[in-house]
Amino acid sequence: MRPVITLTTDFGTRDPYAAAMKGVCLSVCREATVVDLSHEVQQHDVLECALFLGACFGDFPKGTIHCAVVDPGVGTARRPVVAQFDGQLIVCPDNGLVTRVQQRFGFEGAWRIENRECFAEEVSNTFHGRDVFALTAARLAAGMPPEAAGSVTKDLVTLPIAEPQERSDGTVIGEVIHVDRFGNLITNVDHKMLKNDRSNNVSIGDLSFEQVSTTYGDAMRGEPLALVGGSGLLEIAVNFGSAADNLGLGRGEKVRVSI
Amino acid sequence: MRPVITLTTDFGTRDPYAAAMKGVCLSVCREATVVDLSHEVQQHDVLECALFLGACFGDFPKGTIHCAVVDPGVGTARRPVVAQFDGQLIVCPDNGLVTRVQQRFGFEGAWRIENRECFAEEVSNTFHGRDVFALTAARLAAGMPPEAAGSVTKDLVTLPIAEPQERSDGTVIGEVIHVDRFGNLITNVDHKMLKNDRSNNVSIGDLSFEQVSTTYGDAMRGEPLALVGGSGLLEIAVNFGSAADNLGLGRGEKVRVSI
Amino acid sequence: MRPVITLTTDFGTRDPYAAAMKGVCLSVCREATVVDLSHEVQQHDVLECALFLGACFGDFPKGTIHCAVVDPGVGTARRPVVAQFDGQLIVCPDNGLVTRVQQRFGFEGAWRIENRECFAEEVSNTFHGRDVFALTAARLAAGMPPEAAGSVTKDLVTLPIAEPQERSDGTVIGEVIHVDRFGNLITNVDHKMLKNDRSNNVSIGDLSFEQVSTTYGDAMRGEPLALVGGSGLLEIAVNFGSAADNLGLGRGEKVRVSI
Repeated sequence: MRPVITLTTDFGTRDPYAAAMKGVCLSVCREATVVDLSHEVQQHDVLECALFLGACFGDFPKGTIHCAVVDPGVGTARRPVVAQFDGQLIVCPDNGLVTRVQQRFGFEGAWRIENRECFAEEVSNTFHGRDVFALTAARLAAGMPPEAAGSVTKDLVTLPIAEPQERSDGTVIGEVIHVDRFGNLITNVDHKMLKNDRSNNVSIGDLSFEQVSTTYGDAMRGEPLALVGGSGLLEIAVNFGSAADNLGLGRGEKVRVSI
Repeated sequence: MRPVITLTTDFGTRDPYAAAMKGVCLSVCREATVVDLSHEVQQHDVLECALFLGACFGDFPKGTIHCAVVDPGVGTARRPVVAQFDGQLIVCPDNGLVTRVQQRFGFEGAWRIENRECFAEEVSNTFHGRDVFALTAARLAAGMPPEAAGSVTKDLVTLPIAEPQERSDGTVIGEVIHVDRFGNLITNVDHKMLKNDRSNNVSIGDLSFEQVSTTYGDAMRGEPLALVGGSGLLEIAVNFGSAADNLGLGRGEKVRVSI
Repeated sequence: MRPVITLTTDFGTRDPYAAAMKGVCLSVCREATVVDLSHEVQQHDVLECALFLGACFGDFPKGTIHCAVVDPGVGTARRPVVAQFDGQLIVCPDNGLVTRVQQRFGFEGAWRIENRECFAEEVSNTFHGRDVFALTAARLAAGMPPEAAGSVTKDLVTLPIAEPQERSDGTVIGEVIHVDRFGNLITNVDHKMLKNDRSNNVSIGDLSFEQVSTTYGDAMRGEPLALVGGSGLLEIAVNFGSAADNLGLGRGEKVRVSI
């Protein structure tokens, strides 16, 4: 079975950084399928990348090797690690990138990257993406077991992700944790918190919705609505438009949901 | 022979939507080659995506499975379909995405997507790209024949694409249907309508050209010209510059061509 | 061993140009791994693309076929070529795209593309990326030896890349040759010119640094520093920020380094 390596970075593609990582992957494991997940994560935004990985990790097959590099601390004390969840591996700096995956998927072990084989002959202090992370991912793709990377570690760094707060008045206070390309305001309120008939009252900014809709088309063109997005999270959207632009709201905005 | 799945969406790559589709493809058909065509189609612009597919479809080999998702009506009544043209398949919402391919390539059949195997166990109402279209493409890549997707359908939705109008005065009135990254104004006038020696007079906005040039270099640096682009369509360009910016023209602008 | 074809262009991905190239590659050589290096090179910027290729070429395995198309002179007299360096091939217009690779890697031969098999039946004058370069790359991937492309050529076009100037006062005057996504100002001063202990004084604009730092984290958040980037070049950066934005500097800016 062909090994699969995915790449998720904040490098963009105008610069040669992501390309160099692909070269390393193919140099070490020519048969690997190398898949771009994103190189457009907001620069230095470890949390955004952690949410990104959490949202699509479950769609990949067992054995997938995810190489994720949003690494403002490159060259400093943060440790490079390999971590295993539900039969897949993540190779990344231990700076919180696994946070969301760890919340959602079964943790099966983690190892520091210490094996000399996982480091380029000359390791740049500023580009571990190429010289450590891509190389380690490629070694794993070529058959190195994760425990060969280095010593076991259990305490992976995790970031605080805002959790919805239940109030005694029968409401939940959540917040917008991401704005997507369509301007949809994606909140941290999971659909599992909603009533079965989705008759929840949702309010955000000056707006209030009587219920959680099913599809974008439940609102008139240009009108706002609340619904559940592809990741199972409550979101505020505008049909054929941008909720972020139309409503002037963004990350951190509070949302109140009757439950 | 390795199956090829292509992806064309308006999802961008900063969000995890395209990544999730790739995960589904590889989970169902690990051996597939998954190829990004574009995730940068203008949001909700079904026509732009239809023209995009029409422009590159012919370059792909028989058996290619194209998964195209620009789907502002996700979760509403528009039907998911598989359609076959010239030995290739397109998996998409039936909202007009096949329009240009259908004009240019031989239609060989279409099927509604109804087979339970083509739907994720839990289908999100807002993300059929992952739960229906990528999954169906992957099933096809793994060997499912298209007729197993569901019942035959013949009437695929098509969008009106502006056609050039011939006038009695020996001219054709066409229009700009796309502006590309270089600012080239791509019209709907096919090169087959031009004279063999390309001595056609072309006028757009305040400009008039005595003939259709061969290459961008036929104009001085910064100067406009008319020529035939890679898709065989008449375009207005500026050598080393942007015709859209320099001339202040865009989609919908009329062009008059003597024939 | 699966052939690897890489693509580097200024086409962007909203338009169908890069997609068409992938189609051609897979039509001719279905088993090839087609890898996007970048489609986001600045339009018409041959030098930027040459630097890009030079920065990641060395990370790819022997036998890789790089197809690079930044080609403002498409359809004019510049010749299409195949060139070999260190066991890898570059297929491109002979307009300077190989400049940096040629400086850094061993030149092993070059051939004009003349073989009829390397040209589409109908060659567009405006899209050699598809009709000549991708097709030639695919032929090479499918087993055509490079010398079958056409007659030997030795004089590849190269662009002048600014070189640092040594002064009699013990300083070197270099300049910024690229600004990356993070706003890092990448200069043409190679780390080999620096003192072993990196105690070089570096000045640019109004700023002066007492030494060349090791990692971004050596500066306080938001503070500038000089360090060596992933390509081995001296760069000016701002920790967690953009040096280009914060300092208002860009390509061409001079940097003075004591040596």
